[in-house]
Amino acid sequence: MKELLIVESLKNSFHKLPGVGLKSAERMAYAFLAMKDEDKKDFLESLGNAIENVHVCPNCGLYTEQDDEVCDVCSDSNRDRTTICVVAEIKDALTIENSGLYNGLYHVLGGVISASKGMSPDSLTIDKLIKRVDEGEIKEVILATSPTVDGEMTGLFIAKLLEPKNVTITHLAYGLPMGSSLTYADNLTLSKAFEGRRKI
Amino acid sequence: MKELLIVESLKNSFHKLPGVGLKSAERMAYAFLAMKDEDKKDFLESLGNAIENVHVCPNCGLYTEQDDEVCDVCSDSNRDRTTICVVAEIKDALTIENSGLYNGLYHVLGGVISASKGMSPDSLTIDKLIKRVDEGEIKEVILATSPTVDGEMTGLFIAKLLEPKNVTITHLAYGLPMGSSLTYADNLTLSKAFEGRRKI
Repeated sequence: MKELLIVESLKNSFHKLPGVGLKSAERMAYAFLAMKDEDKKDFLESLGNAIENVHVCPNCGLYTEQDDEVCDVCSDSNRDRTTICVVAEIKDALTIENSGLYNGLYHVLGGVISASKGMSPDSLTIDKLIKRVDEGEIKEVILATSPTVDGEMTGLFIAKLLEPKNVTITHLAYGLPMGSSLTYADNLTLSKAFEGRRKI
Repeated sequence: MKELLIVESLKNSFHKLPGVGLKSAERMAYAFLAMKDEDKKDFLESLGNAIENVHVCPNCGLYTEQDDEVCDVCSDSNRDRTTICVVAEIKDALTIENSGLYNGLYHVLGGVISASKGMSPDSLTIDKLIKRVDEGEIKEVILATSPTVDGEMTGLFIAKLLEPKNVTITHLAYGLPMGSSLTYADNLTLSKAFEGRRKI
């Protein structure tokens, strides 16, 4: 028996999800087929709904359910509207949001500048960020790109552009992650930890 | 920002797949949202197609793309039509099929008899199996339920029913799995390996 074409295409779909190898994708495909009809329909509906009704906030780039309208964060008057946290991807903003540590606005760049991945500054939403800063309300821009070569580069690039504006530019602190063992810290992290050492 | 309802429902859908915890489901949901429009549509389509067009073979219980028609295995005249291999689930048949070791027909029971899971013989396709055997062509029934308590029980139950019929009833051999270390073999497997020992 050759594999059914439909099963093959199901498998390919699941294989596109993060962390799903071909074997897992196959297992998922058969598990999907074995689901109750109702569950299958719910599954399909949730995907269809997501395609139809999840939009990107025209202001900050987070997801929103409102078409052509700003997202919950941008429209929330209880948030600190003088601070923008700049992140590479939506999921980075969600990580920060889920921590509950931050109450300002966000700006999603849509990636980082990377020669190897062919990402130029123009392919990011940097222009839009500058415009938001120019509009006047913003007092601090927190650069929260990841501490990788590309992430750092992107942060510096944006910092340079924002320099003439009247805003404080900060980046998140680098150092030893809490709960980690000093023994296993890499040299770069250690050097950042020394560099940023603080009085007790 | 509270989580979008649509994202929540996406997450719940992915969480229903085997081996996908809540954290992975969340990752998958956001990965899905971040896919190219085309990929999203393909994903949706593959699921929709599977729901619409994958049926269960009315004869043996395998999947087929033909509505109300028998599957590729049942209709393949090159296969040995005198042997039926009885398995609990479709995926068991696929494991055997992928091994390429078997060229007969299949019969999918749809589970095993299990008091704890409320599975009675009536909820399985045992009646249909008996009917297939009664139709006359079958010479051997290979019971290939898993060597678990429930699987064994189900095999014995079916063997009992088939006893009066003019067919050979066999079960797959139990013993040491190839490549395994004798040191780590459990007692039950070892006892089966002794019981089934063969002349060299």
